[in-house]
Amino acid sequence: MTVLVVGSVALDSVETPFGKADDVLGGSGTFFSSSASHFVPVQLVGVVGSDYPMDKLAPLAARGVDMAGLEHAEGESFRWRGRYRHDLNSAETLETRLGVFSHFKPKIPAQFRNAPFVFLANIDQRLQLEVLQQVERPKLVACDTMNFWIESRRTDLLTLLGKVDLITLNDGEARQLTEHANLVKAARWILDRGPTHVIIKKGEHGAFMFTRESIFFAPAYPLEDIFDPTGAGDSFAGGFIGYLARTGDLSEANLRRAVVYGSAMGSFAVEGFSTTRLLEIGREDIERRVQAFARLVAFDAANLA
Amino acid sequence: MTVLVVGSVALDSVETPFGKADDVLGGSGTFFSSSASHFVPVQLVGVVGSDYPMDKLAPLAARGVDMAGLEHAEGESFRWRGRYRHDLNSAETLETRLGVFSHFKPKIPAQFRNAPFVFLANIDQRLQLEVLQQVERPKLVACDTMNFWIESRRTDLLTLLGKVDLITLNDGEARQLTEHANLVKAARWILDRGPTHVIIKKGEHGAFMFTRESIFFAPAYPLEDIFDPTGAGDSFAGGFIGYLARTGDLSEANLRRAVVYGSAMGSFAVEGFSTTRLLEIGREDIERRVQAFARLVAFDAANLA
Repeated sequence: MTVLVVGSVALDSVETPFGKADDVLGGSGTFFSSSASHFVPVQLVGVVGSDYPMDKLAPLAARGVDMAGLEHAEGESFRWRGRYRHDLNSAETLETRLGVFSHFKPKIPAQFRNAPFVFLANIDQRLQLEVLQQVERPKLVACDTMNFWIESRRTDLLTLLGKVDLITLNDGEARQLTEHANLVKAARWILDRGPTHVIIKKGEHGAFMFTRESIFFAPAYPLEDIFDPTGAGDSFAGGFIGYLARTGDLSEANLRRAVVYGSAMGSFAVEGFSTTRLLEIGREDIERRVQAFARLVAFDAANLA
Repeated sequence: MTVLVVGSVALDSVETPFGKADDVLGGSGTFFSSSASHFVPVQLVGVVGSDYPMDKLAPLAARGVDMAGLEHAEGESFRWRGRYRHDLNSAETLETRLGVFSHFKPKIPAQFRNAPFVFLANIDQRLQLEVLQQVERPKLVACDTMNFWIESRRTDLLTLLGKVDLITLNDGEARQLTEHANLVKAARWILDRGPTHVIIKKGEHGAFMFTRESIFFAPAYPLEDIFDPTGAGDSFAGGFIGYLARTGDLSEANLRRAVVYGSAMGSFAVEGFSTTRLLEIGREDIERRVQAFARLVAFDAANLA
């Protein structure tokens, strides 16, 4: 089954303790698509400026990412410049130039409107709501958000929560949104407002998936070399939704597997600058990483003393 | 099988956002014993001052903690006063009065010297080395340490690493000791210096167990109400070593289960001030928590698409 993603397509310039990269593929829509396209065909809706080096997107098109919804607008592309310090834990934003993204109004092409899986990547919550008006009762709608929108678009975000099945956000954002320091309480607060599933991402510390009945936790894969954390969250979402769309199975057991696939894709994303690793790995690499995840947390609880 | 622990027996005064407690049971030896005594008989070696309210230790004695190695010295008992802020992540030490603990020289009673399992809780590394000279080839020796000793007793700690089977330390301490920010690299650095197992505790983010061949991860149990984080690490160690001693099985599979028991005991410790919860729970509570752990991380990796 197909996945529709609406998000940013940007040019990133990133500095880490291990090197730097200028004007490389970036943006939530780009990372999500690079990841999800390992599982299913992806329909990408976003906007680029007249300066965007379109040849950089060729590898995504080759992977089955449909660019029919990628608007080409007059002006500068969205650019983000950031730096990670020694601990790689949090990005320091050095510059954000929204460019054509500041006037972005997502228009979902007719042939995308019946996509069964929809991911509203991190864009203005009002735009996410406009997307939902253009699509036809998807099987699953998930959204992401960030601190900026939680502050400036709180009312819209609350409206959105009533219309999505799942939200992914990081621990800091969950605390900011709900005013609960405790993540179990934060998740319950969100579940009370609509979504049946809440995924709280803790970066290098893994991710929780909360439902009303259960909690599932998957660690981040303990890599020895983390190169560039940019896009890990969107790559996680791409693996998660991509796996669900591929299997078409929304059972609890399958959602748990999807979280593990999401974690696997997030772990590949950080192994190189930009989408480099995501675009060079194959299905076998993914399966090997998922099996390594299984070994990482495996213990025999059936046989306790 | 019996566990011998050498550690501090203190009086803690703790303030958290949820209340305060004055002069309650504290110290690494106390938390470890309270936890491990759910699994096996425990032999406690430590020191208290002439002011110590011995009746407070009666519940431990009732649980099978042998106090024959608890020295009674002239002077003040070890007192720690600390505070936790809203996020409960790290203790702010307001006062440490070592008292009789500053002159502590552990003397292992003759009847304790053949203990098969030995835990060297967080005391001066030189004292930990002295303990090892007094015991007779235990089946497993584990030690703990902290930032203070890593800085002031580095040489002794390195000597100790060559003599223990396992070390538990938290992520910050592992980074401080090894000068590797990456925990996989930090663990390898430590494994190269002697221990066959390294447990790196990440507090609310769970714990890793590293061997040369494998990595195991167990999350911290996601509690809704964390009352007082004091002693979580020593309670973890008590559950871990206690379970190993009870089963007498040092296979990888059993060590993984032991980590889960350790996590369970750590999660009980933080549910109340001091050792309150550790001393009121029973085997059934522990088994239920361990089963909840199993559900928390369970996913079916055998049946991937």
